[in-house]
Amino acid sequence: MTEPTLPPDADDGPGTVYLVGAGPGDPDLLTLRAHRLLQQCDALVYDSLVPTALLDLVPQGCERHFVGKRRGHHSVPQPSTNAMLRELAGRRRLIVRLKGGDPFLFGRGGEEAAHLAAHGIPVQVVPGVTAGIAAPAYAGIPVTHRKGGSSVTFVTGHEEIDKLRPGVDWRGLARSSDGLVIYMGLHNLRRIAEELLAGGLAADTPAAVIQQGTVEGQRLLLSVLAELADRAAAQGFASPSIVLVGQVVAQRVAACGPAPAAVEMPIPF
Amino acid sequence: MTEPTLPPDADDGPGTVYLVGAGPGDPDLLTLRAHRLLQQCDALVYDSLVPTALLDLVPQGCERHFVGKRRGHHSVPQPSTNAMLRELAGRRRLIVRLKGGDPFLFGRGGEEAAHLAAHGIPVQVVPGVTAGIAAPAYAGIPVTHRKGGSSVTFVTGHEEIDKLRPGVDWRGLARSSDGLVIYMGLHNLRRIAEELLAGGLAADTPAAVIQQGTVEGQRLLLSVLAELADRAAAQGFASPSIVLVGQVVAQRVAACGPAPAAVEMPIPF
Repeated sequence: MTEPTLPPDADDGPGTVYLVGAGPGDPDLLTLRAHRLLQQCDALVYDSLVPTALLDLVPQGCERHFVGKRRGHHSVPQPSTNAMLRELAGRRRLIVRLKGGDPFLFGRGGEEAAHLAAHGIPVQVVPGVTAGIAAPAYAGIPVTHRKGGSSVTFVTGHEEIDKLRPGVDWRGLARSSDGLVIYMGLHNLRRIAEELLAGGLAADTPAAVIQQGTVEGQRLLLSVLAELADRAAAQGFASPSIVLVGQVVAQRVAACGPAPAAVEMPIPF
Repeated sequence: MTEPTLPPDADDGPGTVYLVGAGPGDPDLLTLRAHRLLQQCDALVYDSLVPTALLDLVPQGCERHFVGKRRGHHSVPQPSTNAMLRELAGRRRLIVRLKGGDPFLFGRGGEEAAHLAAHGIPVQVVPGVTAGIAAPAYAGIPVTHRKGGSSVTFVTGHEEIDKLRPGVDWRGLARSSDGLVIYMGLHNLRRIAEELLAGGLAADTPAAVIQQGTVEGQRLLLSVLAELADRAAAQGFASPSIVLVGQVVAQRVAACGPAPAAVEMPIPF
């Protein structure tokens, strides 16, 4: 007789959904807790910005569901993902909802947590290393530095896909924040740079684009702000990329960036 | 005869200094790489915001150096720490410079990396989970949310100890950033809140203080901005604390915050 795969209390109520940060891509930046949960889960729900190497950590018999964006297609709509997580919690014990980076920084983890909690489903967040810090680090760039100011703003450059969000005050941020880390900023880079220049940033403000940060295919563009969009376009930079603007870029120590991990991370666009 | 503890190439040049993020406190949020490096290092240099549990991961025979702030005393000055790291690299193979949170976000990791690289010493950064994201998460608060805006600024509230930094434009940040995560902000909280109100934030803007986030002794204060400093003082909140200001605080899902780890983290002030 084989051991039951579920613990004795499996029928006492719904399973637990863990909103797990997968980190920026390099599997070595996974947290110990995320690693353990992946090895123990019986259902996995994941999206695009997760290296395929992590998916192999789950046990045999764990069911996998992809809810990310496939090339040329939209993501699974958020209500469908919410419904899937509810359904899985009804019949599975330990569900990992794996998200690139950190679940609570541009990850919609807050929305999923609220939805599940409202339906009486146990949910727990597991913070992860965000790409906005790690991708610059792999390029040798600190996101703060005493010579680069006292503040850094993490901001999404992809406003129009999220109609709920108010517009970003790029000109105000140009005046008040010492550094900017822009997620999903490549598509709107020309307009963003124009707004930052209009807000008062000097044309020669140091800037960078890091594509596929921490994994195979990592690329770095260093430029002044006024030329950033032209150069990124000319050199064919693509998503996923992190854009960094501010004096911190000039504090780069190239030698300290770790080698990107030899793993593939799907590109969602 | 015992095996040599150093690899054959040990005499070929200086050892490598790893600037390692220890994460926010909960040892379970350590990255796999940080965990492995701690288990392999032959010298460890650490400061205050590191849980003592992590120090036990290093091998027997690893030398340990504390360079943080002891109660009532100043930290070891940065030049002394730099010199210590150089000296250790001259006679050790694998040196871990362990820093609370992430080494490149208010960690002075950039300065240490630059110093070591300038002296020809191999140095590599290992990103970690920052307290500014994880402490709110353990309180159930996402640092971004579609209902809470498109940007979040990480800013130090402890300007006067770092004379090199320009002053923070709190009023400008109040106008342009949707959320604020303030590191080391407790000491100046009254003045910071006054500046944010003067900058246009409403008196009833949701705000929070999380003390000892992710570890034993974690405490949460929820308040409106106008009363935040008074209430934090009345309730005896102390460092280390993260201050959070913005509509994201209202998106809290209390149930999703993990239990703080039962480990001690020294308090440096």
